[in-house]
Amino acid sequence: MKNFESVADVAQLSALIQKGIDLKADPLKAESLGKGKTMVLLFFNPSLRTRLSTQKAGINLGMSVINMNAGQGWQLEFEDGKVMNMDKAEHIREAAAVVSQYADIIGIRTFPSLTDRDKDYSDFILHQFMRYASVPIVSLESAIRHPLQSLADLITIEEHKKTARPKVVLSWAPHPRALPQAVSNSFLEWVNRTDAELVITHPEGYELAPQFTQGIRITHDQREAFEGADFIYTKNWSSFNQYGKILSQDEAWMITSEKMALTNQGKFMHCLPVRRNVVVADSVLNSEASLVIEQANNRTYAAQAVLHEILNTQ
Amino acid sequence: MKNFESVADVAQLSALIQKGIDLKADPLKAESLGKGKTMVLLFFNPSLRTRLSTQKAGINLGMSVINMNAGQGWQLEFEDGKVMNMDKAEHIREAAAVVSQYADIIGIRTFPSLTDRDKDYSDFILHQFMRYASVPIVSLESAIRHPLQSLADLITIEEHKKTARPKVVLSWAPHPRALPQAVSNSFLEWVNRTDAELVITHPEGYELAPQFTQGIRITHDQREAFEGADFIYTKNWSSFNQYGKILSQDEAWMITSEKMALTNQGKFMHCLPVRRNVVVADSVLNSEASLVIEQANNRTYAAQAVLHEILNTQ
Amino acid sequence: MKNFESVADVAQLSALIQKGIDLKADPLKAESLGKGKTMVLLFFNPSLRTRLSTQKAGINLGMSVINMNAGQGWQLEFEDGKVMNMDKAEHIREAAAVVSQYADIIGIRTFPSLTDRDKDYSDFILHQFMRYASVPIVSLESAIRHPLQSLADLITIEEHKKTARPKVVLSWAPHPRALPQAVSNSFLEWVNRTDAELVITHPEGYELAPQFTQGIRITHDQREAFEGADFIYTKNWSSFNQYGKILSQDEAWMITSEKMALTNQGKFMHCLPVRRNVVVADSVLNSEASLVIEQANNRTYAAQAVLHEILNTQ
Repeated sequence: MKNFESVADVAQLSALIQKGIDLKADPLKAESLGKGKTMVLLFFNPSLRTRLSTQKAGINLGMSVINMNAGQGWQLEFEDGKVMNMDKAEHIREAAAVVSQYADIIGIRTFPSLTDRDKDYSDFILHQFMRYASVPIVSLESAIRHPLQSLADLITIEEHKKTARPKVVLSWAPHPRALPQAVSNSFLEWVNRTDAELVITHPEGYELAPQFTQGIRITHDQREAFEGADFIYTKNWSSFNQYGKILSQDEAWMITSEKMALTNQGKFMHCLPVRRNVVVADSVLNSEASLVIEQANNRTYAAQAVLHEILNTQ
Repeated sequence: MKNFESVADVAQLSALIQKGIDLKADPLKAESLGKGKTMVLLFFNPSLRTRLSTQKAGINLGMSVINMNAGQGWQLEFEDGKVMNMDKAEHIREAAAVVSQYADIIGIRTFPSLTDRDKDYSDFILHQFMRYASVPIVSLESAIRHPLQSLADLITIEEHKKTARPKVVLSWAPHPRALPQAVSNSFLEWVNRTDAELVITHPEGYELAPQFTQGIRITHDQREAFEGADFIYTKNWSSFNQYGKILSQDEAWMITSEKMALTNQGKFMHCLPVRRNVVVADSVLNSEASLVIEQANNRTYAAQAVLHEILNTQ
Repeated sequence: MKNFESVADVAQLSALIQKGIDLKADPLKAESLGKGKTMVLLFFNPSLRTRLSTQKAGINLGMSVINMNAGQGWQLEFEDGKVMNMDKAEHIREAAAVVSQYADIIGIRTFPSLTDRDKDYSDFILHQFMRYASVPIVSLESAIRHPLQSLADLITIEEHKKTARPKVVLSWAPHPRALPQAVSNSFLEWVNRTDAELVITHPEGYELAPQFTQGIRITHDQREAFEGADFIYTKNWSSFNQYGKILSQDEAWMITSEKMALTNQGKFMHCLPVRRNVVVADSVLNSEASLVIEQANNRTYAAQAVLHEILNTQ
C-alpha cells in the first residue's frame, strides 16, 4: 500500500480487517516495525478521535508522531501558476515536499467547502498533497471520505455480526448544522466490498452522490428499512443535490428505542461525536445495543493495520 | 490509588512525599514501569508548569504522553438528559469513555466559573469525567483543588524544614484579577495532614470555604502571623463569600523583605506564575529565601510519584 | 558549545558542517546520546520547518521533545523592576528558570518588533532567556539571526559546490509584507566564515546592518551580481535604515530563469516559505537549479549537529 485514501487502496479487505483484529488482541506485537520512523499528522481542522487514535497507532508501532495544527498560521496556495501576492504564504508544492523531508508517513485531515461541489468531490486538497509529497499519505478524513473510520466500522461489524451476511442499514438522522457526506460515502463503499446486505434510508432530497450509492437499495421509509436489521449505522449529512444545504431537521428521523425494537436485536453505530436526543435518544446510546465506544476503540487498530501495511511496503 | 483528586486519595502521605524525593534523586529509576502505556492530558485552560512537568513525569516513567488542548473546538455537554441542538457537539458520557479507549491514565485540567459557587464546589466537570471514564483520572487542577501543586509544596517543605513541626503561614496577597481558590484550598488540606503548625492570614472578607479552614487559626494581622514562621506560602484568591469577587487590592498586603524579616529566617513559597511587585517584592523573589523555582522543579517529582502509585495499582 | 545563537558560538565551522553531513548519511548513528534528556521548544510565533526539523533532530538523538506555543496565554514581562499589575502574568526570570527545571536544552523562537530597532538588534528577548535560564539555549530564529537555517544553507552549499571558492550572491527580492532581516544577516555572517566569494545585491535603501555587511561587496545591479555566480540565495527583507519599512515591491527584482541564465549554471536557494511568482518565478523553482527542498531537508541535520555538540559538552 502506497497511499491510503479509499477502499480502492486495499488489496484484500478481509485480510486488513483481520489484521486490525489481531493487532487489537496484541497492540504491541509489531512495536519495533516503525522504529526510527516519523509520522507527521497535519490537521486542517480540529480532531479528537482521529488525532488520539492515529497517534496511539503510530506509537504502538514504535514510530515517533508529530502533530501539526495546519489551520493556524499556515495559509497554503493549492492552485498552480498563481502570483502569490495575497494572503497565501506557501505553495502546496513546497509544503508537501518539505514535510516529506521530515516524515516517513504523512497523515492529513482536510474538509469540504460544502459550497464548491466539484472541487470537494475531486478531493482537491488531498490530491494536491499526494501529487507533491514524496512519502505515503494517509487520509485522516478528506472532503468526501473517512476511510480509517470505515475500516474501524468494519472491524466492529466483524466482531459483532451473528450471520455471514448481516443486514446493515445506513440511516440519515437530523442535526442542527450542515455536515459533510464523507463518513456516509465512505461507509457505503467499504461495506459494499463485504458480503453484507446494505440498505440506505433518508428523507427525500438527501440522496448521496451516485458514485457511492450505485446498486444499493434506498428507501425513504426508515421503519421499513430497520425491520430485521443487524446494524443501524446512523449519520447526518447535508444535501448532495442542493449541495451543502440543510433540507430537513425532522425530529421524526431521530433514532429511538422504539425503532431499534423493529430490528433483529440490531446494534446501534455512530462515528461520534453524536448529539444526544437530536440524532439518537439517550435510551439507545445508554443501552447494550450501542457500539459507539467500541467503534472509537477500533479506530486505533484500523489506523495501526493501515500503518502496518504501509511500513511493510516501504 | 485509582483516581487522584485530593489528599483523601493518599493512603500514606509521608510515604508519597518520600517517593517524590526518591524519584528526584534518580528520575529514571522506574523508566520502564509505564512502557507501552499512554497518558492523555486534557487542558480546558492553558498551562505551562503543569503541562511540562506532568509530561516529563510520564516520560520519565516510560509512558507516551499525548497533549490535547480541549478548550478549542471541543464543546462538551456535561448535563444529562439534554437535547443537544445548540453549540455543544459531544456529551461527557461519550467523551470520557472514548478518551479512555486511547489512554491508560487521563490527566484533566478544569477551572472554576467563579460565578456558580455550588457547581464549582461540587467539582462538577472533574467528577463527570471520573464518572464516565474507565481509566484512572489525575486532576491537573480542578475548580477547587490543585493536588499535584500541593504535593510538590510538601516535598519542598520536607526538603527545607529545620524542625519537625515547622510554622507554615498561608498569606493572601493582592492581585489585579479574580483568581480561583484552588491552590489555597488544596495547600491547606495537604499541610493539615502533616505535623506542621498552620496559620492563615488574609484581609477581612477573604475567608476561604469552611471545609478547608476548619480547625486552622486565622488572623487578619499579617505581621503577627509572620512572626517566627518557617514558611510563608503566598497566594491571591478571590472571595468565597462574595463568590469570585475582588474585595481588595490593598498593596499593604504585598510580601516584602521587611515582612520576611519578622520570620524565623523563613522561606518564601508561591506556586507561580507570580506578579512581581504586586504579590511579592523583587527583593524577596531574588533572595535566597525564595523557594519558588524549587517548587516548580518538584512538580515533576510530585506527578511522577502519583503516576508511579497509579501504575503500580493497575 | 553552551548556547547556540550565532556563528560566533562555533569553534570549528568546517567540522560542524561535516558533522551535519555525517549525520545525514546515518541519522540514527547517535540515537542514544540524548537518552533520558528532554528538549523544550518554545515558539513565540508559528513555525513549520523549524518545529518539525528540530523535533526530528532531537528524536534522532534519542531525546524527548516537548513543544510549547508560547504566544497564546503566556504573556511575559521581560523588563526588570516593573510593577506587574497589567497584562503580563509572569516574569522572564521565573519563566526561564522554571522551564530550565523541565528541560536539558531549551529551543526558543522569537521575532523582531520591526519598530524598535535598538531593542531588536540587542536581541533582547533571546538574551533575557539566556540570562535567566540554567540550561543551554538554542536559537530557533531570533529577532536578527536564524543560525540553524544558515548552518543548513552551508551544508547545502558544501554538498553542491563545484569549486573550493564558489561565488555566492545574496539577492533581495520583492514581497508584499514587511519581513525580518534575520535570515539575511545570519546567512552573511556564516558564509563570511567560509572561503566563498560573497556579493550582496539589493535596491538602494535596502542596506542591511553594517555589522553584518562589513567587508562584503554590495551592488545595486542585480544582473551584474548574478554573472558567473554559483549560488543565488534569495530573500526579501524590510529596510534597516527606515526600520521595518517596505520601500519597494519592484517586480523587476523577482528571480527569473532569464536571470539565472546569467550565472555559472548557478543553483537557486531560499529558506522557505516562498511566494511563487513574486519572489521567484515558477520556472526557477520547478527547475533542477532549485535547492530549496534540499535546504529544508538539511535543517534536520543542522539542528542535529548543533544538539550533538551541546549534548557532548554537557
